[in-house]
Amino acid sequence: MLTRVKSAVGAFMGGIMTGGGSGGGGSPGSDLPLKFPYMRPEFLGLSPDEIECSADHIARPILILKETRRLPWATGYAEVINAGKSALNEDQACCEVVVVRRRPMSYCPPSTPNKTPTAKRRNSLPNGEGPGVYLEHKHPEDEGLMFHYWALFDGHAGSGAAVVASRLLQHHIACQLQSVMEILHNLDSLPPTILGEEPDGNPYLQGNTPGPHQRSLTRAASLRGAAGAPSSPSNTPPPPRFFTEKKIQHESLVIGAMENAFKEMDAQIEREKQGYNITGGCTALTVVYMLGKLYVGNAGDSRAIIIRNNEIVPMSTEFTPESERQRLQFLGFMQPQLLGNEFTHLEFPRRVQRKEVGKRMLYRDFTMNGWAYKTIEDEDLKFPLIYGEGKKVRLNSDFGLLTKKKTWLIFQARVLATIGVTRGLGDHDLKVHDSNIYIKPFLSCLPEVKVYNLTQYEHGADDVLVMGTDGLWDVLSNQEVAEAVSTFLANCDPDDLHRYTMAAQDLVMRARGVLRDRGWRITNERLGSGDDISVFIIPLMYGNRQP
Amino acid sequence: MLTRVKSAVGAFMGGIMTGGGSGGGGSPGSDLPLKFPYMRPEFLGLSPDEIECSADHIARPILILKETRRLPWATGYAEVINAGKSALNEDQACCEVVVVRRRPMSYCPPSTPNKTPTAKRRNSLPNGEGPGVYLEHKHPEDEGLMFHYWALFDGHAGSGAAVVASRLLQHHIACQLQSVMEILHNLDSLPPTILGEEPDGNPYLQGNTPGPHQRSLTRAASLRGAAGAPSSPSNTPPPPRFFTEKKIQHESLVIGAMENAFKEMDAQIEREKQGYNITGGCTALTVVYMLGKLYVGNAGDSRAIIIRNNEIVPMSTEFTPESERQRLQFLGFMQPQLLGNEFTHLEFPRRVQRKEVGKRMLYRDFTMNGWAYKTIEDEDLKFPLIYGEGKKVRLNSDFGLLTKKKTWLIFQARVLATIGVTRGLGDHDLKVHDSNIYIKPFLSCLPEVKVYNLTQYEHGADDVLVMGTDGLWDVLSNQEVAEAVSTFLANCDPDDLHRYTMAAQDLVMRARGVLRDRGWRITNERLGSGDDISVFIIPLMYGNRQP
Repeated sequence: MLTRVKSAVGAFMGGIMTGGGSGGGGSPGSDLPLKFPYMRPEFLGLSPDEIECSADHIARPILILKETRRLPWATGYAEVINAGKSALNEDQACCEVVVVRRRPMSYCPPSTPNKTPTAKRRNSLPNGEGPGVYLEHKHPEDEGLMFHYWALFDGHAGSGAAVVASRLLQHHIACQLQSVMEILHNLDSLPPTILGEEPDGNPYLQGNTPGPHQRSLTRAASLRGAAGAPSSPSNTPPPPRFFTEKKIQHESLVIGAMENAFKEMDAQIEREKQGYNITGGCTALTVVYMLGKLYVGNAGDSRAIIIRNNEIVPMSTEFTPESERQRLQFLGFMQPQLLGNEFTHLEFPRRVQRKEVGKRMLYRDFTMNGWAYKTIEDEDLKFPLIYGEGKKVRLNSDFGLLTKKKTWLIFQARVLATIGVTRGLGDHDLKVHDSNIYIKPFLSCLPEVKVYNLTQYEHGADDVLVMGTDGLWDVLSNQEVAEAVSTFLANCDPDDLHRYTMAAQDLVMRARGVLRDRGWRITNERLGSGDDISVFIIPLMYGNRQP
Repeated sequence: MLTRVKSAVGAFMGGIMTGGGSGGGGSPGSDLPLKFPYMRPEFLGLSPDEIECSADHIARPILILKETRRLPWATGYAEVINAGKSALNEDQACCEVVVVRRRPMSYCPPSTPNKTPTAKRRNSLPNGEGPGVYLEHKHPEDEGLMFHYWALFDGHAGSGAAVVASRLLQHHIACQLQSVMEILHNLDSLPPTILGEEPDGNPYLQGNTPGPHQRSLTRAASLRGAAGAPSSPSNTPPPPRFFTEKKIQHESLVIGAMENAFKEMDAQIEREKQGYNITGGCTALTVVYMLGKLYVGNAGDSRAIIIRNNEIVPMSTEFTPESERQRLQFLGFMQPQLLGNEFTHLEFPRRVQRKEVGKRMLYRDFTMNGWAYKTIEDEDLKFPLIYGEGKKVRLNSDFGLLTKKKTWLIFQARVLATIGVTRGLGDHDLKVHDSNIYIKPFLSCLPEVKVYNLTQYEHGADDVLVMGTDGLWDVLSNQEVAEAVSTFLANCDPDDLHRYTMAAQDLVMRARGVLRDRGWRITNERLGSGDDISVFIIPLMYGNRQP
């Protein structure tokens, strides 16, 4: 305990800036090679010199697409580095058109999707080989299944996981989709419950829900039938069996593919940490467009909103210690060994003091949304599993407890006093400072996937999907973002394909602010965001034009 | 296994009506006395003869308040028995005004609230002693804290739990509120974090959130302070400590009180089953009005909506195997012993057959909302923890698998092939048929509490809260109910206090329908509800008139 106090206080007093400085993906002391070198998004096409210039914490230049470059759907993008909380910009971004080819299943084992590339980039931009041409109107059936892909990753405690995820997550999605691509192409009939079997060859009623007059089957008889137990002693034939069957929509297969892709990505990071230096963790916000629908998958605290006809449609929810409190408390209650005898799954409005044992204090457990009083016991002196309130601060790369913004520290909701976001990729080695308590069991790599049917609406040139890391949303509300984007686009030439990039730049500028005597300031003298900020602005009218 | 098949088939063929016939609360074979006799709601003031007449499954008379009786706020109430699925009406209802008196805490131990009555009924109706007078305008502070209380309980597998809950749950709520009543009366300051201590006597900053410039405290130092560990070796005094403290609103105390009251009620049923015959389980939908706000607490699949100015405000959500799938699957995954080696936590669109082992079938686990294909293994032949789709059928009193409505059986979503509702009170003895697998670990007694601030709106005479058991909502949508009630009330004299009872009667009639050649029919020849139906219609304008 004493050691922990000393090191915590030392770092607290020193305000040391720790920021994954060793080549970006590296962590001090690791002899392993990087999986991928640190970089900025490939589509920006930056030179090494430009990358170095972009990391100026004083000037904080806003990076945008060069005019010679174009992203699918004329997507706009802009980013800026933080004001000093880490040496590198720990956000990462990806935007590609991915074609899933018809290949035998064995060609794409889910465990090593990156070693067996099954998805070929249609967009040549990510390779950085010249300006590239985006083949917008080629019919996808020619080669397989095509999807558009946009993603933001917000790293913490190092940039390694964010870099890896920005390079590979789309391939995991492609691999998952590959196994269902024939089914997804065939929109005339629902996905089959079982693969490779003729419905007629099955004695069970398949695919159609039985009518209300068909005979039902008791669970017991059903169990017998399924498990192959002997029939009744009289040897009379069993009664005819009819099963009801859930109808699964094509949409559910895409959602399932994205969910499993996130799991595989996380598993790959864990696996490859044996041979590579992959630091930290990251949130992941991904948008997949295919077959007329946008699928927005979010794990973390980035956010996506649609602005349509000046109205806001939220397309994600944030996962934080506060929004996931009951899930986390339940896990701590069920598996108390994960709390390492140092934490309690109960929540209190503040820390309990020893002298308060025996008195009655407000608390709540995983079952409660309200609060009640309980008599304080010795057990309650442990540190609360979830503690703090409101917006978290990012972790620095290798020091979980302290950040440069010391005054924020105590006020943010954190899990196990360490992390302020509860979903994402990586973080397998993250522990409570100076302890052997792992954070990862409390984190989830699962995205929440929301679906938006692009074909249900006619979209104008100013209808967009905005994706941003929390650096944007910490200082601007949905309403402020919508107003800023709508106003900006209304003043642009509708035929200027660069307008979405300009709008993204404007948005990042509004969130970063300008440097004055008292720091970065935005409108109304509010503090600007000192965090990394990354923004995609995706016009929706191009979706309507797709096959 | 064979025994199970035989008994299941026997009951299936016989279509035996089992309905808690032994005195209502009793179960066949139990020698224990009833905790309370079977009854209809006290406020109906029915004679034993009338109660018997009400249980006519052919005529299905709709019961309403007698004209000489009145409920608080002129609340309307109506009910009807089922069409034969159980001998007795297993719904129960309660409506009271409860006064929480100032008493020493020891007077109201949470474990035995019913033995030490702390709440006195202001409304004399529940005792059935004459017409009674509802004292509407007496100031509550005279005697303590007053709350209005409405509740519906929908029993299954016997009426015992529903009867007990309808008699006692309000006392548990009163007991929980008693411990915070002084705090609830004092709306000028927020509830104190700790009781019985002067803020000034505490070296920690209390009650006010520290400003952003105050120094923060590391977790390590905080742990030291709380745990009383020695200070640093230099013996310098520790830095001043400031804690941030969550501000808890009064509203949260009422929510917490309701949550804990449900837990205590459930614990009492479990405890008292040792000495009393308390059959089955029940859902619970409760409304508490106090200090200007309605608190709607729901555990189960009853529903409450507010109709205000012809618009619908949903005030509850239903808890079913489908809506709680991920919670249940997660529990089965974490504690597989609860599945008794007979069930799998995975979900499939239908039962898996032995011959399908090795093939790929659609599935999803607790992490997924979408679906994907997996290769079927032997393990997957187990019965799914959650199976079926859509609306459940009630259990009969002592036979979990079969009901008279046989054709429904296979289509309903159930937990462990047994129960179609996942929250409520009781059910401690409920097992999977002919096994030792208990259902209770998968059920939750916790209500979701939603709050409606009555003082935020001016309510007219036609603005109401409608509470109904699932017998109502199974056949009528929110929209249909809102239209029926609004239309009915618009045609009544606004000063007729009986109008809400008439509207409730009309609503029950619309859901039950009329008996024709082909059963109970409602508008458009749809099937009427064959379930028990109970409805409260609570006018909201009386809330605005309360102190």
